[in-house]
Amino acid sequence: MAKILSTTPRADGFRMPAEWEPHSGCWMLWPERSDNWRRGAKPAQHAFAAVASAITEGEPVTVCVSPGQYVIAREMLDPAVRVVEMTSNDSWIRDCGPTFVVSDEGVVRGIDWKFNAWGGLGDGLYFPWDQDDLVGEKVLEYERDDRYAPDFILEGGSIDVDGEGTVLATEECLLNPNRNPNLDRAGIEQMLRDYLNVDSVLWLPKGVHLDETDGHIDNFCRFVAPGEVVLTWTDDTADPQYAISADAFERLASMRDAKGRSLKVHKLHQPRPVLITAEEAADVDHVPGTLPRQAGDRLAASYVNFYIANERIVMPGYDDPRDLPAQQMLADLFPGRRVTVVPGREILLGGGNIHCITQQEPLGKIKRARRAA
Amino acid sequence: MAKILSTTPRADGFRMPAEWEPHSGCWMLWPERSDNWRRGAKPAQHAFAAVASAITEGEPVTVCVSPGQYVIAREMLDPAVRVVEMTSNDSWIRDCGPTFVVSDEGVVRGIDWKFNAWGGLGDGLYFPWDQDDLVGEKVLEYERDDRYAPDFILEGGSIDVDGEGTVLATEECLLNPNRNPNLDRAGIEQMLRDYLNVDSVLWLPKGVHLDETDGHIDNFCRFVAPGEVVLTWTDDTADPQYAISADAFERLASMRDAKGRSLKVHKLHQPRPVLITAEEAADVDHVPGTLPRQAGDRLAASYVNFYIANERIVMPGYDDPRDLPAQQMLADLFPGRRVTVVPGREILLGGGNIHCITQQEPLGKIKRARRAA
Repeated sequence: MAKILSTTPRADGFRMPAEWEPHSGCWMLWPERSDNWRRGAKPAQHAFAAVASAITEGEPVTVCVSPGQYVIAREMLDPAVRVVEMTSNDSWIRDCGPTFVVSDEGVVRGIDWKFNAWGGLGDGLYFPWDQDDLVGEKVLEYERDDRYAPDFILEGGSIDVDGEGTVLATEECLLNPNRNPNLDRAGIEQMLRDYLNVDSVLWLPKGVHLDETDGHIDNFCRFVAPGEVVLTWTDDTADPQYAISADAFERLASMRDAKGRSLKVHKLHQPRPVLITAEEAADVDHVPGTLPRQAGDRLAASYVNFYIANERIVMPGYDDPRDLPAQQMLADLFPGRRVTVVPGREILLGGGNIHCITQQEPLGKIKRARRAA
Repeated sequence: MAKILSTTPRADGFRMPAEWEPHSGCWMLWPERSDNWRRGAKPAQHAFAAVASAITEGEPVTVCVSPGQYVIAREMLDPAVRVVEMTSNDSWIRDCGPTFVVSDEGVVRGIDWKFNAWGGLGDGLYFPWDQDDLVGEKVLEYERDDRYAPDFILEGGSIDVDGEGTVLATEECLLNPNRNPNLDRAGIEQMLRDYLNVDSVLWLPKGVHLDETDGHIDNFCRFVAPGEVVLTWTDDTADPQYAISADAFERLASMRDAKGRSLKVHKLHQPRPVLITAEEAADVDHVPGTLPRQAGDRLAASYVNFYIANERIVMPGYDDPRDLPAQQMLADLFPGRRVTVVPGREILLGGGNIHCITQQEPLGKIKRARRAA
């Protein structure tokens, strides 16, 4: 059903909507690999299940699982969650899944980017990533959505759009030679313009300190409305995060978006540093070629890694005094949405958080009509 | 999304529609196992792909494939066919898949029967069948359809309904102690009444000669309209099929359906006997516990094993002089539908034919509305 398109979203009048625009649902992948998730991924599975339950209060959730996990996942997940089979190498659908675009008439299509596990054979986090690279295509096939399939490596977590012509990204990730070495900054900006249908690319140099994704923007700085962003922050000048966030704050203050607006920047204070404990490291299998999880390593904990669902914000909590102020800030920034806090530590131990393990599908009018036919 | 219901379709006002009622689509499974399909299932895969292509002219087709076959199947199948991952033990979705029921208001639900590979540990055709038994549940989960899950073994190919209160079945299959040994004839009739929502069960003693399904009705005698059936036939009195078909013809002549109508019986002459050649048997892997495919074995070739799609009939051809008259008879019986003949020998070598590898999903009004919401 799904056609592969050789044009671009921009040429066809499609754009990536902001995450706060209405969704038809949310896609997730089920964590399983024991060389990234401790204790055979059981604690992570419970954490993912809690995220799915929270989101399903706002919109339908589909969790994709491997054949061997189907019955197990079906038992562990909320009955309101749909479970389908889909093979993957790990569980970061924000990054290996499709990016959806919509037309003014409400047709939904997908962009099936290439994926190389955050850096390929040199810097990537595991090998192989062949099944992850098929996830975008498969989701679009399941949904019968036509797709663009550019020869371009991009993770969904490395971009953030306002839906009105502006995208935020970090140089640390998008200009990293481990992604698209044949393209320079201008070439990469052109790809973002053509596929996301944006006019302005706002660059920040780096993302969160020690973020193994090479500084994904979705853990660091995101739009919460047109002209407004949240930025992960710390008041501790001795923390390496301080210089990164302070520099970003200064740059953001002088930026204009595609509509000519200056940006209002909300500082979202990070939790205390989160370090892997010896107990947490002990039960992760060690496998050559997969990034090890070692006791004492600092994780890229951030409250910015929340998911915007219909009527809900689902944000990670860290059992930290900063949890409540973060929840309050997001509640103030999204007045139409209840903010649910889900424990994020087990997800963070695998290398990301709630936004990384989710992928929204926008609600399209024409698609609804096609389904009804 | 999909709820498990503890009531019955009859109690809830749902019924199994006739196959000629409008479909939202057709489900298939991809053949793969080399101990049933010769040459690593390649010839069968081409045959299944041809069936999918023919049906897709009339309605959307979804083919479910194992993870290892996804990319291969996607390449081999018509671009108009949707491919999704689903694990199974073999590829007979008529028998291991769900039976759909509808309400007068157009709500669609499914019946997730139990499945034991046509006879269980004693008489079954292979072991294990655990993944096949999950196919019904999975299809309904993919479609977000609520489901009934009776503790009752039934294959979809062992029943045929007219959509107006009558079901056809064979005693050879449904009363076989290898299916539901704890239920007698009255108990089994009650299950059919409760779940298919029929009033009359019309019994024939046996199905097609040597049919390894224990005489499935869908290879032998099927409704083509209320009050009209086709019956596989031979004029060769020396053929063991003759006595079976002649006996059925006589019984059918004296039957009344649920509406009190007598039945018009159309004799659909079978092709010449189809025997497995030495070449065909040579490239099937021999595995303990799986029914062997041996040179010289006669197969249960029948033209009755056709699929009724929207605007199309897809029937098996056997490179036989009877192909054309069979096609003509079906064209006369289904005046609103074009009859497409697809070579059936490779499917027959695996133990069934086009009806056995397909499962229609009825078009529901409420479901359409729900999808549009």
